[in-house]
Amino acid sequence: MNFASDNAAGVAPQIVAALARINTGHVLGYGNDEISLRAIDQFRAFFGRDLAAYLVTTGTAANALALAHLSLPWGAVFCHREAHIATSEAGAPEFFGNGLKLVLLPGENGKITPQGLRAALDGAEWGGPHHVTPSVLSLTQVTEAGTVYKPGEVAELSEIAHANGMSVHMDGARFGNAVASLGITPAELSWKVGVDVLSFGATKGGAMAAEAVIFFDKARAAGMDERRKRAGHLVSKHRFVAQQFAAFLEGGLWLELARHANIMAARLASRLTDVGLKPIWPVEANLVFAILPAEVNARLTAAGASFYARRGFQLPGGAKIPPDGVLARMVTSFATTAEEIDRFAALAAAR
Amino acid sequence: MNFASDNAAGVAPQIVAALARINTGHVLGYGNDEISLRAIDQFRAFFGRDLAAYLVTTGTAANALALAHLSLPWGAVFCHREAHIATSEAGAPEFFGNGLKLVLLPGENGKITPQGLRAALDGAEWGGPHHVTPSVLSLTQVTEAGTVYKPGEVAELSEIAHANGMSVHMDGARFGNAVASLGITPAELSWKVGVDVLSFGATKGGAMAAEAVIFFDKARAAGMDERRKRAGHLVSKHRFVAQQFAAFLEGGLWLELARHANIMAARLASRLTDVGLKPIWPVEANLVFAILPAEVNARLTAAGASFYARRGFQLPGGAKIPPDGVLARMVTSFATTAEEIDRFAALAAAR
Amino acid sequence: MNFASDNAAGVAPQIVAALARINTGHVLGYGNDEISLRAIDQFRAFFGRDLAAYLVTTGTAANALALAHLSLPWGAVFCHREAHIATSEAGAPEFFGNGLKLVLLPGENGKITPQGLRAALDGAEWGGPHHVTPSVLSLTQVTEAGTVYKPGEVAELSEIAHANGMSVHMDGARFGNAVASLGITPAELSWKVGVDVLSFGATKGGAMAAEAVIFFDKARAAGMDERRKRAGHLVSKHRFVAQQFAAFLEGGLWLELARHANIMAARLASRLTDVGLKPIWPVEANLVFAILPAEVNARLTAAGASFYARRGFQLPGGAKIPPDGVLARMVTSFATTAEEIDRFAALAAAR
Amino acid sequence: MNFASDNAAGVAPQIVAALARINTGHVLGYGNDEISLRAIDQFRAFFGRDLAAYLVTTGTAANALALAHLSLPWGAVFCHREAHIATSEAGAPEFFGNGLKLVLLPGENGKITPQGLRAALDGAEWGGPHHVTPSVLSLTQVTEAGTVYKPGEVAELSEIAHANGMSVHMDGARFGNAVASLGITPAELSWKVGVDVLSFGATKGGAMAAEAVIFFDKARAAGMDERRKRAGHLVSKHRFVAQQFAAFLEGGLWLELARHANIMAARLASRLTDVGLKPIWPVEANLVFAILPAEVNARLTAAGASFYARRGFQLPGGAKIPPDGVLARMVTSFATTAEEIDRFAALAAAR
Repeated sequence: MNFASDNAAGVAPQIVAALARINTGHVLGYGNDEISLRAIDQFRAFFGRDLAAYLVTTGTAANALALAHLSLPWGAVFCHREAHIATSEAGAPEFFGNGLKLVLLPGENGKITPQGLRAALDGAEWGGPHHVTPSVLSLTQVTEAGTVYKPGEVAELSEIAHANGMSVHMDGARFGNAVASLGITPAELSWKVGVDVLSFGATKGGAMAAEAVIFFDKARAAGMDERRKRAGHLVSKHRFVAQQFAAFLEGGLWLELARHANIMAARLASRLTDVGLKPIWPVEANLVFAILPAEVNARLTAAGASFYARRGFQLPGGAKIPPDGVLARMVTSFATTAEEIDRFAALAAAR
Repeated sequence: MNFASDNAAGVAPQIVAALARINTGHVLGYGNDEISLRAIDQFRAFFGRDLAAYLVTTGTAANALALAHLSLPWGAVFCHREAHIATSEAGAPEFFGNGLKLVLLPGENGKITPQGLRAALDGAEWGGPHHVTPSVLSLTQVTEAGTVYKPGEVAELSEIAHANGMSVHMDGARFGNAVASLGITPAELSWKVGVDVLSFGATKGGAMAAEAVIFFDKARAAGMDERRKRAGHLVSKHRFVAQQFAAFLEGGLWLELARHANIMAARLASRLTDVGLKPIWPVEANLVFAILPAEVNARLTAAGASFYARRGFQLPGGAKIPPDGVLARMVTSFATTAEEIDRFAALAAAR
Repeated sequence: MNFASDNAAGVAPQIVAALARINTGHVLGYGNDEISLRAIDQFRAFFGRDLAAYLVTTGTAANALALAHLSLPWGAVFCHREAHIATSEAGAPEFFGNGLKLVLLPGENGKITPQGLRAALDGAEWGGPHHVTPSVLSLTQVTEAGTVYKPGEVAELSEIAHANGMSVHMDGARFGNAVASLGITPAELSWKVGVDVLSFGATKGGAMAAEAVIFFDKARAAGMDERRKRAGHLVSKHRFVAQQFAAFLEGGLWLELARHANIMAARLASRLTDVGLKPIWPVEANLVFAILPAEVNARLTAAGASFYARRGFQLPGGAKIPPDGVLARMVTSFATTAEEIDRFAALAAAR
Repeated sequence: MNFASDNAAGVAPQIVAALARINTGHVLGYGNDEISLRAIDQFRAFFGRDLAAYLVTTGTAANALALAHLSLPWGAVFCHREAHIATSEAGAPEFFGNGLKLVLLPGENGKITPQGLRAALDGAEWGGPHHVTPSVLSLTQVTEAGTVYKPGEVAELSEIAHANGMSVHMDGARFGNAVASLGITPAELSWKVGVDVLSFGATKGGAMAAEAVIFFDKARAAGMDERRKRAGHLVSKHRFVAQQFAAFLEGGLWLELARHANIMAARLASRLTDVGLKPIWPVEANLVFAILPAEVNARLTAAGASFYARRGFQLPGGAKIPPDGVLARMVTSFATTAEEIDRFAALAAAR
């Protein structure tokens, strides 16, 4: 019953096998090998267009490198107030970005709205030399509330951003789950709706440590190679990162894994609703949030269930966390089983 | 009728004269001269205790150097959402602080409240390695709304900050105006109520370009000399900055100048109230904010009056800016005359 | 015949097997799992003392994080002019260190000498506020010339550094090769001879992507967790990095692999000497440097041999690279075979 | 007898008078006033072309802002090993430049030579992702050895730099002294010979605190306004910095002051030669270097003479500093008198 995070799972067996398979011979380091070059081709096929891709081993690195590359140091990156880049990366965007500034936007269900974005742009003074310059809109997909931006929502936000001279970044640590949830193509959820740069994560989806910064316009990637290297994020035996992506994309493994995680989340949501613990936000991918009374929280924890109590979230109208209760975040993964969900729900229901 | 800013004024004649007076002979550069050393003694007398002082030529430099010195790069600086360091320094704190993060607090009348500070500390996850660490509370005195923190208010906020392991910084670009407003001693508004480091401004008060970073605990200033130098803020002919402070502090000139500015603001507030344009926040120092209908704004501007229309402020309950109207900020200085105020108010009243 | 780098090899089969072995169940991410905690214990046993260890995936990250942690931003890091941190990390130390400065020291055979270090300290102005402050001595072990600092040499240099208020860092990307070469214990080549912080590499030794920053004084590691996280170097499925080290250290695998690499280098040196291409520096670990005449270079390259032509090295007295010749660096690894060495030497000898 | 530095002098009386003259009325702050705008025009006239100019209060700020603007963070700035930016700015270029790297070139008489520059470019590996990218050539004019680059020398170096994709920066803290020495126009020593950006100093020449970053190609200045502001270098009462330049340039005051300083240096050189203390480098502007035996040094110091003993300089062939002797740097200024020079020389000669 481990729902702490999708990174608490191990690695999909197909990916481990793929790593073992390429462990022969010598190749050039730092991405100048055939496996690494082929991975770029796979990305091209996956997204249906030419692009530039830079592999790293953590999502924080992917996000921070992307934002630093898109924003001048005196730029502002607009994001949701609960975005991972704002709350859980220890200031990485500001560090990589030489002191860029995050501007936090409110928004229900973890989503930035066109109204919210426009209000932020209109409601303050922007631009040099005294004020920072709006430079990037960063969307988290799947959101931190477990919801999924629809293509039309991304398109509308991108349009506003572009009209205001901003680039659009998507933190796609769970991009696969979002695509699986919507049943569309990766292109339809990224460049076709205005995303300029995507942090495309495989780790949470089932890889060991593999994230990619995808530039849909190759020209904008100039200098990214140097930026990655001096941040210590150019892995020397690079083929072993590339091969994780190769296996992840091969034959739609990513989709199979993401679908499983999403189905497990839906099952968890359903079971919890059955026992009177209806999730507080729509469960659209692999995250489930519910308010647990103190005794339920205690009982589950005592039974060895693992999940995080989260603070700092804007709750939907009317929702209140009872004294000693918690806002529990439960994350499912490719490795979650129906059995552990049912056991979890049964425990939650017991009295 | 120039109310754009107190830095739109020139320099107090006494300060110009003082600069001319010391323009003889050769001295060591970089602060190792008698005038510079004597200025430190004057600061000691002014604040009634031992301290370390570092002179620079801008308020942004004073603030950013102070914050960078007090906060680790992965620290958070809590400040009011309308604080100058947050809105008007183009990201200087983040740049100097190697990517530190500002956390913006709400609060009426431009003031952080104990409730607001506690809510921010309690309402989110803080601390390493994933979250930034609350490191500094920065108070703006006079606030950006023109109000003044009372000693008891500073003391209560400082106590919360210190209890949470945070240092207390005060952006005192208009510290003199605040002291004059309250009729207390500089000590009573700084170290005696918990301020650890003060950005003490003379420029807006009547100097040419003179700001000081005051460390009330000298031990905490270790390394500040190097930090200032590598930021390009160690002026070579340093005595000419020191001498501005010498003249500013000599014989209470600072107080005389600040009192005048405050009195002019009170007069402006009174006159505007008379003509139905009551300031929206208490006028406690030398800033006056009023909502100007479009026609009043146009008339004043046409007559050559100078002031800033400000955006991004949280208005007091019920206040609304009418279509095409503005939230006007009017700042008085040592050089403001009663005549220009009366003329301004008369124009505002005309119909 | 791939001698381009020891990171051109794959991964030792024992390490791949070890990764597959732990791929079960769920654990906490970010290093809070049993495998990760056990790895720290293994480091303690390996070095024979208590310590703090931070795992990352690249050597550049290990070095830059270590140096940034040991040096203030206005500090100077003294290193050999050919050190990897100076020539091949794209400015990572300066980026992580918020603009710290590297001071490049000369020295034959890739080694800093006590005379050279003292000359640098005595021969220039140091210290605040105008000059940077000597903060760290960084030694590369194995050196970039393929030589190995003896314990006594490290001790003497450390003593000078400590006496001048500097910390001692060792870039041990090939630390295992150095220990194997000297036939001593890891302790005798690190903390017992004054090393404060060690970048301990496993990647070049046979791992996939595993490097550790080792603080021999745990107190000095305060804040390192945050520094690593905000640099994007805290791997979420951390156990898979820890497990690489676990397997590397288990049963002396590291030593077995390093010995093989060193023996292969010695064989290559011997074979090249036989054919008149005597290595220009003592071959003490797994790097061999030889000057190749143009035709030899062409013949080897045509036959598919892989090695780097290096520039920027201070050659030993009298050595000259002939027109169109190259200074070839050949690196052996755990995966190098005697057969490919003999074939390489035979090709080099042919005419 | 103060020869410590040209910043040990006060301010030229004409400049003090000019400051007092403009101290009336209110103007917009931050450079948006008539005096500030007019100063730009004066720069245009001075250099004989359109340009962009940014005023600051220190030379370190001018240099560091210029270099950060010209170089990417992973760039290298090539400069003489004794350049002020390398030895005396506490790492400001690295701090402002987000960790850029200085590459130190040797060269007699404080000058970079075409051979030296080419050797540096040819003798090492450059460019991404592993190596920093040569980005800027920075020339110090007057050099730290007191010599002056001739226009042809600058042109030749600029040509090499440009051919290698590098920009050319000139640290002109003593630019006026160099122009005065050569008897040419400012244009002939800057943009006409390939200088892209000039740090043009007035402080050492006789101002209080006034330095300008001059972009001869305005397009390259985009973003400089923001960069200056967030570094805390946008002075609020900006007209008082602009006015210093206005007075400095007005009627050729700068030239008159520089000529005087140069003449005094020539006199000092001549007097010292007469007493057997021939300057070790050609005295071409307002700096004089001589080796003083211990007893001469003691006698001068005891008599109250002020100068700096410098370390870290590459001495011309054969020159040796005797035990307890010093390499003395003597700087003359607009305020130096013939009398104090003669007294100094007489003291030096006495036995």
